[in-house]
Amino acid sequence: MANSRIGIWLFGAKGGVATTATTGLIALKNGWSGNAGLITTTAPFEGLGLVDWEDFVVGGHDIRAGRLYDEALRMHSESRAIEGALLEKCRGELDAIERNLRLGTIHNVGPTIGQFAEEQLRKLQETPREAISRVQGDLREFQERHQLAHVVAVNVCSTEPTVDESKLPKRWEELDRLIDQKERCPLAASSLYAIAALDLGFSFVNFTPSLGATPAAIQELAVERGARHMGYDGKTGETLLKSVLAPMFAKRNLEVMSWVGHNIFGNMDGKVLDDPANKKSKVTSKDRLLGQILGYSPQTLVSIEYIQSMGDWKTAWDHVHFRGFLGTPMTFQFIWQGCDSLLAAPLVLDLVRLTERSWRNGEVGALTHLSAFFKSPLGVEEQDFGVQFQMLQRWVEATRAKGPASA
Amino acid sequence: MANSRIGIWLFGAKGGVATTATTGLIALKNGWSGNAGLITTTAPFEGLGLVDWEDFVVGGHDIRAGRLYDEALRMHSESRAIEGALLEKCRGELDAIERNLRLGTIHNVGPTIGQFAEEQLRKLQETPREAISRVQGDLREFQERHQLAHVVAVNVCSTEPTVDESKLPKRWEELDRLIDQKERCPLAASSLYAIAALDLGFSFVNFTPSLGATPAAIQELAVERGARHMGYDGKTGETLLKSVLAPMFAKRNLEVMSWVGHNIFGNMDGKVLDDPANKKSKVTSKDRLLGQILGYSPQTLVSIEYIQSMGDWKTAWDHVHFRGFLGTPMTFQFIWQGCDSLLAAPLVLDLVRLTERSWRNGEVGALTHLSAFFKSPLGVEEQDFGVQFQMLQRWVEATRAKGPASA
Amino acid sequence: MANSRIGIWLFGAKGGVATTATTGLIALKNGWSGNAGLITTTAPFEGLGLVDWEDFVVGGHDIRAGRLYDEALRMHSESRAIEGALLEKCRGELDAIERNLRLGTIHNVGPTIGQFAEEQLRKLQETPREAISRVQGDLREFQERHQLAHVVAVNVCSTEPTVDESKLPKRWEELDRLIDQKERCPLAASSLYAIAALDLGFSFVNFTPSLGATPAAIQELAVERGARHMGYDGKTGETLLKSVLAPMFAKRNLEVMSWVGHNIFGNMDGKVLDDPANKKSKVTSKDRLLGQILGYSPQTLVSIEYIQSMGDWKTAWDHVHFRGFLGTPMTFQFIWQGCDSLLAAPLVLDLVRLTERSWRNGEVGALTHLSAFFKSPLGVEEQDFGVQFQMLQRWVEATRAKGPASA
Amino acid sequence: MANSRIGIWLFGAKGGVATTATTGLIALKNGWSGNAGLITTTAPFEGLGLVDWEDFVVGGHDIRAGRLYDEALRMHSESRAIEGALLEKCRGELDAIERNLRLGTIHNVGPTIGQFAEEQLRKLQETPREAISRVQGDLREFQERHQLAHVVAVNVCSTEPTVDESKLPKRWEELDRLIDQKERCPLAASSLYAIAALDLGFSFVNFTPSLGATPAAIQELAVERGARHMGYDGKTGETLLKSVLAPMFAKRNLEVMSWVGHNIFGNMDGKVLDDPANKKSKVTSKDRLLGQILGYSPQTLVSIEYIQSMGDWKTAWDHVHFRGFLGTPMTFQFIWQGCDSLLAAPLVLDLVRLTERSWRNGEVGALTHLSAFFKSPLGVEEQDFGVQFQMLQRWVEATRAKGPASA
Repeated sequence: MANSRIGIWLFGAKGGVATTATTGLIALKNGWSGNAGLITTTAPFEGLGLVDWEDFVVGGHDIRAGRLYDEALRMHSESRAIEGALLEKCRGELDAIERNLRLGTIHNVGPTIGQFAEEQLRKLQETPREAISRVQGDLREFQERHQLAHVVAVNVCSTEPTVDESKLPKRWEELDRLIDQKERCPLAASSLYAIAALDLGFSFVNFTPSLGATPAAIQELAVERGARHMGYDGKTGETLLKSVLAPMFAKRNLEVMSWVGHNIFGNMDGKVLDDPANKKSKVTSKDRLLGQILGYSPQTLVSIEYIQSMGDWKTAWDHVHFRGFLGTPMTFQFIWQGCDSLLAAPLVLDLVRLTERSWRNGEVGALTHLSAFFKSPLGVEEQDFGVQFQMLQRWVEATRAKGPASA
Repeated sequence: MANSRIGIWLFGAKGGVATTATTGLIALKNGWSGNAGLITTTAPFEGLGLVDWEDFVVGGHDIRAGRLYDEALRMHSESRAIEGALLEKCRGELDAIERNLRLGTIHNVGPTIGQFAEEQLRKLQETPREAISRVQGDLREFQERHQLAHVVAVNVCSTEPTVDESKLPKRWEELDRLIDQKERCPLAASSLYAIAALDLGFSFVNFTPSLGATPAAIQELAVERGARHMGYDGKTGETLLKSVLAPMFAKRNLEVMSWVGHNIFGNMDGKVLDDPANKKSKVTSKDRLLGQILGYSPQTLVSIEYIQSMGDWKTAWDHVHFRGFLGTPMTFQFIWQGCDSLLAAPLVLDLVRLTERSWRNGEVGALTHLSAFFKSPLGVEEQDFGVQFQMLQRWVEATRAKGPASA
Repeated sequence: MANSRIGIWLFGAKGGVATTATTGLIALKNGWSGNAGLITTTAPFEGLGLVDWEDFVVGGHDIRAGRLYDEALRMHSESRAIEGALLEKCRGELDAIERNLRLGTIHNVGPTIGQFAEEQLRKLQETPREAISRVQGDLREFQERHQLAHVVAVNVCSTEPTVDESKLPKRWEELDRLIDQKERCPLAASSLYAIAALDLGFSFVNFTPSLGATPAAIQELAVERGARHMGYDGKTGETLLKSVLAPMFAKRNLEVMSWVGHNIFGNMDGKVLDDPANKKSKVTSKDRLLGQILGYSPQTLVSIEYIQSMGDWKTAWDHVHFRGFLGTPMTFQFIWQGCDSLLAAPLVLDLVRLTERSWRNGEVGALTHLSAFFKSPLGVEEQDFGVQFQMLQRWVEATRAKGPASA
Repeated sequence: MANSRIGIWLFGAKGGVATTATTGLIALKNGWSGNAGLITTTAPFEGLGLVDWEDFVVGGHDIRAGRLYDEALRMHSESRAIEGALLEKCRGELDAIERNLRLGTIHNVGPTIGQFAEEQLRKLQETPREAISRVQGDLREFQERHQLAHVVAVNVCSTEPTVDESKLPKRWEELDRLIDQKERCPLAASSLYAIAALDLGFSFVNFTPSLGATPAAIQELAVERGARHMGYDGKTGETLLKSVLAPMFAKRNLEVMSWVGHNIFGNMDGKVLDDPANKKSKVTSKDRLLGQILGYSPQTLVSIEYIQSMGDWKTAWDHVHFRGFLGTPMTFQFIWQGCDSLLAAPLVLDLVRLTERSWRNGEVGALTHLSAFFKSPLGVEEQDFGVQFQMLQRWVEATRAKGPASA
């Protein structure tokens, strides 16, 4: 166990996932909550020497005004998903954490996200490099003020519109030049955040379908700086089920003719995904794995719609039409009623603990052993959740075998 | 590849699973059907040198009168599950196979099954040993007449009432003595069939929740005779899904508070399961794995009810109530609408091919690498379908590595 | 509008339905809640001169120890169905109402209900008549102390085991003699409560599947005393849907082959229904209407099971298998996730208001115009919810036409 | 009962609904099928003197090449919805009916429908009036050749793109002038068909969401010619359920916050609806009634998507999120798995019989008593299916009271 404290820096710190992770961390520190949904607290992860909950310090960027506690409260008042009494108990610590929050950037996030930004941010005239530099100033100040051994930055901002990756240079050297040009640089905020963190040697986790550290040039930067990262798009609900169920159809040779998935939910993320430009990033990420697992491409349909009354409760109906023996069509349907942020938040906390351990371990680049956490795991073709989990377990065993590491 | 032909002997040859497997085999031989639902035809099983469909000969026991073709036709007329035109094409070969059918035994099958038996069978006064001996006569005659290199016998009879295993001697020597005593021998037909086949060195597969070759004493006999067997209770639908989904809840530490599963269907098997004595065997087998996979015991409920209009279409509704992060309850439900016999039949054909390969390989005793096929796999604690399938794949690789085998 | 106040007397005052109705009444009086779920507040009921919420006074009987507020709190702590903050606001008034509660009777309620009774009640040696007399004393004292113009008594106790109605005399005169005989009197508590209330000229509403005022002899008593009553078994969820959906199948001549309904829930009522003797009353009441609506009897199956984790959230899965044109089978399924007590409570409040209006109107006997509220409406064959609602609307129009009534 | 025979003229005679209705009529004439799905054969319609099945003669227009029998066969080969053996028996009569089919018009049907038309039709240069005149020639020839007392024409063509009704003149006099102008006349084929039939005094039923006889000017023509018509958009599945379920939520004051409905299916109609221009007509018709029934407008979402493997089996998942007492959100979901054409076809036959009866009765204009059959009933605000059915029953009683009518 490290003696020093570790920073968690949340890009999108006032969003549903971030406020739930922050509330959850406070609850865990104080013993106000059990471990449901967390995997690093389970038996297979024992003996890894992971950082204790009380040794984490939270900070972050956001683009919106509004009090952190009020944002956290939405999970109660709009979604009936977290007990009001628990939030009340966490209020003081949430207010303290609010002092660690800074203004992010809205570079290329598109009008749907941009409309939520504070006016001062909308007026700001910065080049991408200036934005990165400002963000790095915030990160360094956070590290110094709290005397942090390391910072794990996590992107939990709203989904950005897709970026045409073909327009991006493959080498960091070239991308580095591009970030001086406000108009020509196609990178969106998530990638500027990634660059800011990785350039400082900090860890970066991309929990969203936005581009983040995905471009080859940014991955090159990470390796150069000895930093580590992983992504993208946390696998929390419907897609997790696809990655569990599709292997069954494949292994039993039950030919999937069509797989239809309709998702409805009503949180802030839903409002953003109501813009087709933003939705495209998400739907692609939710749909890709079926062909990878099955080895052929059935007709698929993925929709994700904003239904305000649902709040953070994401309901998915999936209809799988498959062909059995002698060609007879059969049907499997599921209905998933999960609270989106409560499914995501413990994964964020787990990822922070595991990524910090990789830092102590001296691991650099994409942390492919974390593929089980992501819809579109960087550098990993395997999409079967069970096999992905075995990859993680092998890393755990190898890490445990190496014995304790210190920073 | 073996030069000689291989026998498939079906105990319960006129039931839904058997007639579907037989019809399917005829369709496959003649190229009238694709491979959906069969796994031994998929890439991972290539190069194993499995027996071709045309090298199988089908025979079997049943307790009921009635023409095989008419029984097969129910899958069309009562269940709309197999095309009438396909059955019509198979009629001639079904009639030919009917000449290979013999009368089985109803020893200890209970009144619900017994009522369907031919009168001559109900009047028969046999000791268990006499029944075994008569069955063995039928098996030998089948082998000789068709010049079969080997016979794989498969139990696809209706589910028998539970047998109190604690009353059974653990050693074959003692059980051997018991089978002379009609009144004191608690074994039911499935176990007499198993003894008959294994004693001749034939292979035995128990596709039902009945006891079959499960008792330690019968397993001992199998080893003594150099025979092989596996079971029990084919994993076709709802339980297959449990063995795929429960590991996800376990790995994500989403605490399952309750798992309710209601099954409805209307085939002959359903009529038999309407008797609580018979149903108990089934429900126990469907329910056991949850605790094994999760490591704790949530409240569970499994019902299986006879609804005549459903025919062979088994519909399962499962409701999983689980606790997420911060203790918030969430829900996952699925609805499975599968045709029971069409899900089971290809597994039977796959099991026959794989078991025959083990015979050529000289394998003896319980074929534990086949656990992925069964709800209650003999000698295997592992209930995660993905891991079970990996066990099978390892056997395939090892077998392939050994090169071709001949009987 | 009556000048004087009206009493609501709840038999089973600490149960889920009663505590929710009581909490709801407090919330309505104070303007802390909207009108969702209440029908007497909607346009069709305007101008009827119904009693205002603030003019009701609540009292009741229960057999259990425990504080009313704590029982009400279960709807928050065990079921997440009522906001904790609302209950906190209602606490003072709930404590005040607790002073109006008295000990009920456990005559013939069976061991499953009986086990929950206070010890002093279990030891009590009373004849039915003595129990009735004691209950009447409580009712009179309630009326006098609060200066109530009238009392509407509502049975919301747990479901009692079925009573063999054929053993009951048809005339009050004879039944009247039977209630002196503790051992021979087959009536259970609900009927003693009904007799107690009706004999005093008070109104009685039976919201449960228990017998209550159903026996002809008790209905005769009601008419003799100029009292009114209605029942039985509030139509809140799955059965409400049956009474809405079955008419559609009938009118479209879509032949229902089977209708399967599985209900799971985990409140106190669920614990009681886990006893087959108690469950029988409920299942019969849930099942009866299908044949009445369709005009023929499809195969039906109704189960209702106690699953603790569900709390007050009753989830029903219904599977309707029907035959369409040219005999083709089709399927309709629904999943109902409703909070049982929150569905029932507003109906109780509506019934009290409407029954009180009938009292002012001088109506006597079974209030058949209230059939839309009940699974098994007394004296009404019609089971189509839409038609039942029209019966209620006609009563509303007729009552409105008569002009205001005073007690 | 009329002595002479009655014609059924199907616009879209080779589509799924038409071929199913035609096959069904043949089956009914020959006693090869029961009455499931038909309402005019049920008790409430007895004594009306409706035309017998054997007195109907079928003809129609279509725009596609291809044999009628082959189109009918799709319901077996692609959808497993009609028995192959039944279709085989109907083959001869289907071939005979094929001789009564003529080429329709593709005026303004848009490119998605137009692509399916025979080449000769795509090349045809007609003004709307010429098309009407040609269609009328076909209708007259049909009537004369088969000596028909009357013809009921039914539009069962694919859904056309929406027409901007505001551009249409309100009076027939003006519209009459417009139909000479190929380019300026915004009417699509369905309206030309309606004009052709009504102008001859024939009856016209619009079973689709296309405009048909809906424009005021065409309704005026119908009255002038003493003709009758009704529409539009047959209420077969998901919307039927909405018209049954929404009244329940309204009557119980359970506030619907959102109602989401996703429909998937894979027939020819589905291919056409995959074009957003055509889909708009359909979705509007499926969505409108909720606000009308509830009296307020919850957030709604209706999707209808083409999934090829589904064939004619339309599966709808509806998710209703509603607010119960004390504001607590609850959920009702249904899954409807119906065969679209088999649900529609008997309604077409019923509508023909009832419309013919109105003809003998001398009824003119919109037949509003038929509203229960339609999603968007002309001239009727009432959307509650139960109340609509009562309107039909009152017409039946009145008609029966008048005694038999002859043409």
